[in-house]
Amino acid sequence: MSFAKLDAHCRSLIALEHALSILGVDEATAMAPGGGEQRAEAMAGLSGMYHRQATAPQVRDWIEAAKTETLDQAQQTAVAELERSYVNLTCLPADFVEHKMRTGMRSEQLWRTARPKGDWVGFRPALEGVVELVREEAAMRAELLGLAPYDALMEQFDPGNRTETITPVFAELKAFLVDFVPKALKIQDEKRAKRPLKPLSGIYPVEKQKALGIAMMKAVGFDMNHGSLSVSDHPFCGGVPTDVRLTTRYRTDEFLPALMGILHETGHGLYEQNLPKDWAHWPSGKARGMSIHESQSLFVEKQIGRNPAFWTFALPHVASHLGEDWAMDDLLPHVHQVKRGLIRVDADEVTYPLHVILRYELEQDLLAGRLEVKDLPEAWDAKMGDYLGISSLDAPQNGPMQDVHWPSGAFGYFPSYTLGAMMAAQQWATISRSHPDINEEIAAGDFTTVNTWRRDNIWLKASMGSTPEILRQATGEDLNPAYFIAHLKTRYGA
Amino acid sequence: MSFAKLDAHCRSLIALEHALSILGVDEATAMAPGGGEQRAEAMAGLSGMYHRQATAPQVRDWIEAAKTETLDQAQQTAVAELERSYVNLTCLPADFVEHKMRTGMRSEQLWRTARPKGDWVGFRPALEGVVELVREEAAMRAELLGLAPYDALMEQFDPGNRTETITPVFAELKAFLVDFVPKALKIQDEKRAKRPLKPLSGIYPVEKQKALGIAMMKAVGFDMNHGSLSVSDHPFCGGVPTDVRLTTRYRTDEFLPALMGILHETGHGLYEQNLPKDWAHWPSGKARGMSIHESQSLFVEKQIGRNPAFWTFALPHVASHLGEDWAMDDLLPHVHQVKRGLIRVDADEVTYPLHVILRYELEQDLLAGRLEVKDLPEAWDAKMGDYLGISSLDAPQNGPMQDVHWPSGAFGYFPSYTLGAMMAAQQWATISRSHPDINEEIAAGDFTTVNTWRRDNIWLKASMGSTPEILRQATGEDLNPAYFIAHLKTRYGA
Ligand SMILES: [Zn+2]
Ligand SMILES: [Zn+2]
Repeated sequence: MSFAKLDAHCRSLIALEHALSILGVDEATAMAPGGGEQRAEAMAGLSGMYHRQATAPQVRDWIEAAKTETLDQAQQTAVAELERSYVNLTCLPADFVEHKMRTGMRSEQLWRTARPKGDWVGFRPALEGVVELVREEAAMRAELLGLAPYDALMEQFDPGNRTETITPVFAELKAFLVDFVPKALKIQDEKRAKRPLKPLSGIYPVEKQKALGIAMMKAVGFDMNHGSLSVSDHPFCGGVPTDVRLTTRYRTDEFLPALMGILHETGHGLYEQNLPKDWAHWPSGKARGMSIHESQSLFVEKQIGRNPAFWTFALPHVASHLGEDWAMDDLLPHVHQVKRGLIRVDADEVTYPLHVILRYELEQDLLAGRLEVKDLPEAWDAKMGDYLGISSLDAPQNGPMQDVHWPSGAFGYFPSYTLGAMMAAQQWATISRSHPDINEEIAAGDFTTVNTWRRDNIWLKASMGSTPEILRQATGEDLNPAYFIAHLKTRYGA
Repeated sequence: MSFAKLDAHCRSLIALEHALSILGVDEATAMAPGGGEQRAEAMAGLSGMYHRQATAPQVRDWIEAAKTETLDQAQQTAVAELERSYVNLTCLPADFVEHKMRTGMRSEQLWRTARPKGDWVGFRPALEGVVELVREEAAMRAELLGLAPYDALMEQFDPGNRTETITPVFAELKAFLVDFVPKALKIQDEKRAKRPLKPLSGIYPVEKQKALGIAMMKAVGFDMNHGSLSVSDHPFCGGVPTDVRLTTRYRTDEFLPALMGILHETGHGLYEQNLPKDWAHWPSGKARGMSIHESQSLFVEKQIGRNPAFWTFALPHVASHLGEDWAMDDLLPHVHQVKRGLIRVDADEVTYPLHVILRYELEQDLLAGRLEVKDLPEAWDAKMGDYLGISSLDAPQNGPMQDVHWPSGAFGYFPSYTLGAMMAAQQWATISRSHPDINEEIAAGDFTTVNTWRRDNIWLKASMGSTPEILRQATGEDLNPAYFIAHLKTRYGA
């Protein structure tokens, strides 16, 4: 039976994925400094094995044969999703994939040395090479998938996401934010004039911050029997669903950055830990994609973790772990701080979408050939001026050189961040519609309602529908910017 | 060219070995408790891939073809060693290997629950099943390799080791020890009557012990850029040559157990770190086998670490890290304690070989059918009485049920421990012959001579000769018990 062959095939692939995932975590958390070269060799070797196995020609035959076998609904979905994944993996010639990977790696390496110096001129040719290949790639994917080129790129990260639906949503959000950001900043100024911002600084030993972080992870539902928290230079959520590895980094003079980072990664971790166990080795049992994943991390970080109700619950824990008894009115202004800035990863939830929309627009222009790399700094600066009223023209490291995505060849990824933020708001709105007292539950440290809803509507759905399908089934409607806009107005507009 | 194909083949295998090795370390040091089942699945999947790739029929063709190609000496050795490894891997039918692995795993699981209860009767049938399969295995290996059955088993762990040479050496050592142990104990008693044993107890925080351990690791040559020290329930040396992972376990009331454990594992680690880089992915570039590996760990633990000269160097470090200023005459009696006991892993260097020789004799009897499992407890007890004058007949968990080796199906492994101890003494004797002031160097914290000699004569030889060949080339003679006996007489006989 071909379905059984596919099942064995998926088990073999998952063993390699498990290894690659844990090796990645180990590299960031435990590897000796001199071990990097052999680690890279080993991971390249395993990735090659994975790619050869995943794209083997007989897999296509098994998929075709399995489609004619008597399968239940879940099995049919599993085969369909495996086919989607197989098509996406095999739609580029092997030598093109290798050429693009090498070009992307070289460009990323160059970027790592050029960025700190702001050496745009030195880096530009590498990015031009990448953009050229991405244009080729998008054309090939588009042809095979029957999609527009940019949609074909997004399809890798979020199956079903289309510019046709995203562009008007982003346009509405952008129009709102360009107007709203100055208002929110003015309101913030007025509040601070009345009650000056009190620094949340002190001396917070790492061990105490870690204990606080773990207490909050457990409180919001993270299963410490199937996961852990450690330290790395760049926080991430890695590992495997049965052993989710969260990391953070600590500074001993502030506790909020590490704690909010932990809450963010915990959101990713909850999704992974609660995927359906039966289908764990099939693509249909894995997390859907980048924007739904980000909706889960942002749900915990922003909808829960920056919600005043959460701090009613959390402040006593902060006090008992760190010995600091902050007043709510001193803490919330930090949690809700709005600030115009050039750097996306440092942005707050109000200004962040403008950073994303700028990139979304520019990468479509680059892909379509309406914009060339040489003209990127000016184009970037023009939009940065229009959207946020600031300029990075004199420091490209704070402009188009700030992110790893383009240097490494990842185009079509950026929208996921803001789509995730909007989906999180839409999910929260759905929950609070049927549970009007949700904030009281959260203030009491009871996360049952939000977790039960997300388990049933997001986590257990895994990849059993496209990104828009999962959102529609969960919330009863398509992506609707009204919820995120209402959320920002409530939190920052009064 | 077939040699190039074999080279690529070895690179692919080393990637899987790297993954399996790091996954093993991660399991012992970082994995979440609930992650074990999926980890086992993943490692079984990768092991299967490894076995299929390593035993693929075309590898035999490439080896045959490579032997006709123009190769330099190192390449010829590499092909010969790969062939040896290929033959050992393919000499059993695949379904027998799987059957034996499953039987061994079930028996080991049963052993883990039966041992604490001393339930020999409950465990015996499982061991009988294992012994039956090991007899079959040995017969098949013997047939194909043209060796005696027990030699064919040892060949997996130490290529070239033969009962023909080991049995008389062990007989000589046994005769010496049965006579020497009571003498050494009497001498110890007399010394203690003059100067009572002073407990080395105190409160030693883990972080301070770790800092002391790392200082000693570095002192004896461990490269912290290519390795690290962490914690696990059972100390081990794992990882890969470019990233050697040592572990230990600490108790806060004593520092000596952890420190001596660290020195032991550091010996293993030095060997791994200093293998020849060019051949790292070929079997010829890997550590030779269990007894040479153990000779390196015991060289550092016993020849260096229990040498009074070492403590001239180490005591000030103990004082500065732990704040305890021990007198040499109070410390050495602990480092050199001799004690009759039932448990091999707790034994000192004087009594340890008798535990090994007892097992060496019994497992040959079991293999040859001269002894059946049902008669094992009595046979064990008889030898334990003859060799050490103690009995475990009432507590089989302290007798034939104490080790994991037999329950898991590893026969022919035990001799490696004592062969390693003897080889370490023989290596030390060779060095001190040409460097009579070696103890002064060590007392001064200068490990250059011992490390240079071992690098040239052991570490860089990797698997480019059989176990006896490497020893002969390094020391100028075959395994000679006189060195180990002289070492024990000097350290414990006066
Ligand atoms: Zn995230
Ligand atoms: Zn050892």
